[in-house]
Amino acid sequence: MTLDQDQTPERAFDRGGPSLADVGERALLRALREIAHAPAPGLIVASGDDAAVWSPEPGTDLAISQDALVEGVDFRRTWITPRRLGARALAVALSDLAGMGARPLWCTATLCAPSSTCFEDVLEIQRGLCAAAGSVGCAVAGGDVSAIDGPLVIDISVGGTLGANAALRRDRGRPGDLVLVTGTLGRAAAGLRLLLDGGDDLSEQERAWVDAQLSPVARIAEGLQLVASGVRCGGDISDGLLVDLERITEMSACGAELWLDRLPVETALVSDFGAAWPDLAVGGGEDFELVATLPEPAVAALLESWPEELAPLTVVGRLVTGASLDVLDHEGGAQMPRPQTSSRHFS
Amino acid sequence: MTLDQDQTPERAFDRGGPSLADVGERALLRALREIAHAPAPGLIVASGDDAAVWSPEPGTDLAISQDALVEGVDFRRTWITPRRLGARALAVALSDLAGMGARPLWCTATLCAPSSTCFEDVLEIQRGLCAAAGSVGCAVAGGDVSAIDGPLVIDISVGGTLGANAALRRDRGRPGDLVLVTGTLGRAAAGLRLLLDGGDDLSEQERAWVDAQLSPVARIAEGLQLVASGVRCGGDISDGLLVDLERITEMSACGAELWLDRLPVETALVSDFGAAWPDLAVGGGEDFELVATLPEPAVAALLESWPEELAPLTVVGRLVTGASLDVLDHEGGAQMPRPQTSSRHFS
Repeated sequence: MTLDQDQTPERAFDRGGPSLADVGERALLRALREIAHAPAPGLIVASGDDAAVWSPEPGTDLAISQDALVEGVDFRRTWITPRRLGARALAVALSDLAGMGARPLWCTATLCAPSSTCFEDVLEIQRGLCAAAGSVGCAVAGGDVSAIDGPLVIDISVGGTLGANAALRRDRGRPGDLVLVTGTLGRAAAGLRLLLDGGDDLSEQERAWVDAQLSPVARIAEGLQLVASGVRCGGDISDGLLVDLERITEMSACGAELWLDRLPVETALVSDFGAAWPDLAVGGGEDFELVATLPEPAVAALLESWPEELAPLTVVGRLVTGASLDVLDHEGGAQMPRPQTSSRHFS
Repeated sequence: MTLDQDQTPERAFDRGGPSLADVGERALLRALREIAHAPAPGLIVASGDDAAVWSPEPGTDLAISQDALVEGVDFRRTWITPRRLGARALAVALSDLAGMGARPLWCTATLCAPSSTCFEDVLEIQRGLCAAAGSVGCAVAGGDVSAIDGPLVIDISVGGTLGANAALRRDRGRPGDLVLVTGTLGRAAAGLRLLLDGGDDLSEQERAWVDAQLSPVARIAEGLQLVASGVRCGGDISDGLLVDLERITEMSACGAELWLDRLPVETALVSDFGAAWPDLAVGGGEDFELVATLPEPAVAALLESWPEELAPLTVVGRLVTGASLDVLDHEGGAQMPRPQTSSRHFS
């Protein structure tokens, strides 16, 4: 019996209709955003981008975001130590700030764990989280712990600062812009495949891919450098370049081309995974690199002034008119089949 | 096999030792705070209080907090409609801001739900959350959704503003201060008992108690009024007055007396629950009222100027020297047995 049932016209739980699996992650997110959509004073960027941007007063913009890791969906206990898990949860959340070009200031964390969880494991998660936060100057400002009759959940909120009107936004792309990415693509997805295959007898190269999956690094310095260089369109690559570039094209009302020959991938990835390498490089997520777009004339200066100590920038395609995202074997070349993307949620 | 196991000295999961249930919530929170404890510029109040306080620049303090509701621990699906659940999750998180005397600005929310969850139920949760946020001028600034092979989890982050040095803190009590609470105590705990007993055939009074459990209201206006009136010590009552006052005495290095005859409880609570009523009124949580302490000479002016439209303030005890929290039948009266407190986590 639902107590509300007979006294209000509200619906109780589980009254039928399509499930989240029927609807899919994308439609779910769209529907949730539509409900949340209400103009609020000070809220410059609402959900839909990597982070929301809040301007409590002129000149100080805050970027805020929240990201959860769920056992069985985002990780398995047999894959990772608790300490690395804490660091990973923070990196995943911080990547949303990096994708806005924000400087992290604080985080709070909720941990849901079964009562049977080892106390020391939870402390190790906290140690990993705090060490990772400390290394980027982010204060751990509290949070919540809860029992759960189910999997571990680590949900992290992050906040950071942005210069006024100086965010990497997904709605600022223009046809003709070149598309750039930081670092190397496909390593984390390769690591995930190895883990799903059992993760046994790994070569040094394979172990490095597994590390890329288990210990991602948020590209905070790269995001700050992009906005400092005047770049205003971009985001992080959490769900794979294809999906994350599509978010840019949708929000910027344009299309895009990706050029396979320009993608920054390791030769070992191509040799080890053969024809499947584009599925990893642009269909697979969790590299937590950044994608940015900017007008072609500005690209040379950006690349020239790009600090050597940061993850390198590579031009990988172009925004175009229209609405489709095409994968070409090279600029002006043949259209290739769309690489397979993988969503972990509701699919 | 844990991949880290052989390459690092880190411990894998589940290596034994005491569990969270063995250690208990209080020791867990203390240990987590010790690990997180690192001075951070701008972080004025770290974890341990209701919310952390962040001062990005002089004059503007931000209060931030995060709170999760977990199915099976904090609610059951058969108790509540999805819309009320969304509103409840927000109210619980906002109560931490009320407990600091902060004005809510934004929230973000993570929802973990099994793929089989009805799409419409999730939209209803979001509608409830957004309506509740809108009613207090709080913007819904995004969040995360994740699949989970387990119970529903709704984890909400909230942020708000405080005047400089104008927070209700748990470490500002002094022996001699009177202890005041807002509203009426024990109603939500009574409602929880009725729900756990099946929730059938409820009287109008009982239904009101169930409503108090399912639809709490964060005392935001009361928190703002307290700080505006110069009160500097206080917090919300999420875990019961006994536990939440104990947090004040611990952080303020003093003891306290509670006077049973002064507690604001409904006569129906006393008549319906008999000798167990103090367990509900001071041992039971989730009324989400506020507790504050202030020097006795200032109390009359506070009560006199207290706006009628707010939840009333009642003096219920006093901070004293020492470290014990005693429950007396009346001021200067006999010491009573300590009412039973209930923790939902790791006990």
